[in-house]
Amino acid sequence: MKVFLECLPCIMRQALDASRMSAGDDALQSAIMKRAVKITGDFENRRNSPEIAGAIHKMVAEMTGVTDPYREIKRKDMDTAFSLLPILRKYVCEAKNASDGIHRALKVAAAGNSLDSAVYGGGVSPDLESLIEKELGKPFASFDGRLFESIIFARPANILIVADNAGETVFDAVLAEKLYGISSKIFYAVREKPILNDATIEEAVASGLSEYAEVISSGSTIPGTIVSDCNPAFRKIFNEADIVISKGQGNFETLSDEKRGIFYLLKTKCNVLANLLGTIVNDYVFVYKENGKEAKSLENRNEIKSLMN
Amino acid sequence: MKVFLECLPCIMRQALDASRMSAGDDALQSAIMKRAVKITGDFENRRNSPEIAGAIHKMVAEMTGVTDPYREIKRKDMDTAFSLLPILRKYVCEAKNASDGIHRALKVAAAGNSLDSAVYGGGVSPDLESLIEKELGKPFASFDGRLFESIIFARPANILIVADNAGETVFDAVLAEKLYGISSKIFYAVREKPILNDATIEEAVASGLSEYAEVISSGSTIPGTIVSDCNPAFRKIFNEADIVISKGQGNFETLSDEKRGIFYLLKTKCNVLANLLGTIVNDYVFVYKENGKEAKSLENRNEIKSLMN
Repeated sequence: MKVFLECLPCIMRQALDASRMSAGDDALQSAIMKRAVKITGDFENRRNSPEIAGAIHKMVAEMTGVTDPYREIKRKDMDTAFSLLPILRKYVCEAKNASDGIHRALKVAAAGNSLDSAVYGGGVSPDLESLIEKELGKPFASFDGRLFESIIFARPANILIVADNAGETVFDAVLAEKLYGISSKIFYAVREKPILNDATIEEAVASGLSEYAEVISSGSTIPGTIVSDCNPAFRKIFNEADIVISKGQGNFETLSDEKRGIFYLLKTKCNVLANLLGTIVNDYVFVYKENGKEAKSLENRNEIKSLMN
Repeated sequence: MKVFLECLPCIMRQALDASRMSAGDDALQSAIMKRAVKITGDFENRRNSPEIAGAIHKMVAEMTGVTDPYREIKRKDMDTAFSLLPILRKYVCEAKNASDGIHRALKVAAAGNSLDSAVYGGGVSPDLESLIEKELGKPFASFDGRLFESIIFARPANILIVADNAGETVFDAVLAEKLYGISSKIFYAVREKPILNDATIEEAVASGLSEYAEVISSGSTIPGTIVSDCNPAFRKIFNEADIVISKGQGNFETLSDEKRGIFYLLKTKCNVLANLLGTIVNDYVFVYKENGKEAKSLENRNEIKSLMN
């Protein structure tokens, strides 16, 4: 996905946050922003926004020596997520049938993608539990769940989940637990090293994901996944998996250039992405796309569509 | 006032708005943003944010030939303001006494500074009238009204009002009308030519300001007022006026470097300004400052303060 001009102010805001968190004195913050503006100005030569964000955060780390400015935020998000785990488990346990169980587990993983906005927008709220219950109660604005089920119930599938944020990982573990018994193998891929508040192996393992999945590094060092920049092991798994589930906006922005079919599971957080996905901001989506577009080629897609109506 | 790093993402957002309004095709918008980023990156050599905004909008005009992209928005804001005029007049007429009348007229002019956010935040609302009544009902978070009265009631004063947005001009006319009888002379200074949605002579005159004030151009071509860049006539009036009233954030950002005492009348619209003024976002203030700081030197300031307690 190309760099949208709307992303530029947002990238500058992220750069400012990173400089504030990493650099103590004003002069260094100013020098960081000067370089951040320069990196941003080269947007025409970048493949997508996460690539620019990655370059900026690499520069901030080099200039400050702080390689993980979001460490404390990630820790808090993990704590918050763990505190919500009983609600998440209960929500999935109350499913009416197998299909509803899958649906609910997908919704939990999607709601996990809202954790950052829920938490950053005013600190950990005492009403966080009711907030999450409300999020779980929101229907998907776009939902290719029947298509997903037709694949996973046909035969045990190899599933790759491409992770997004720390904390969200705890929510993803609920999905992985649900898929564990009915799939052949689950891979859970995280960033190679800390970038923004994205999950690394440390948070994935701490979230209990290794009980249900093989936790791997994709090799990505940006807040997204450019497959050609990833490590060979990840590329092989990505190409061969029966199902790829991509979490969050950053992965959508980067993976939607890929030819292979991918299920995107996320909460839309900005107008650019909402427009692309045909929804509005704060909607939940679980959509299947090939090459970033609604799939036409998928075997029995039409049959499934007709079944759904 | 220096350029705050927080202003950089905001400047980029403004640049994007201007490019969207002025340039039809994507390639030109992209080229504009490339140059806007470059201009923004030179922030260390700029005196304040409005100077950067001015440079960006000059570049956009040169690249697109569109010298007044906000023309239609200004026209709508003028219409909106005129539709609210009966409410504004009624509010001032219901004053309990002379002092309350001044207070109310100042509040009208301050509420005019909220017009842009009121209108842009979701289009012209059918509830705009009740919205403005609510704004008028909000007390000033910081109010140097007693000091202001002590000057204007001591002897007929020369007053300079440095204008901000189109539409707000209609609100300012209500203040000018109130001050007309008790002052020696009122000057109402606007931008030399269109910049953002700021008022020019055209909108000031259309708002009826020339009935009460001499409408002049400050010579400024940025969304603020750097006095040393203004025309000689304005500089003379600025230096010699008994009272200067500066409207809006852009003028505060630029005029607060001036030694002379100035009354700032505005609604805070961002955290940077709110912090500087010791308020929170969306607060109304009418504060007197010299060199951007609370005045210590003003004659009888302490006496007035003691009278106020």
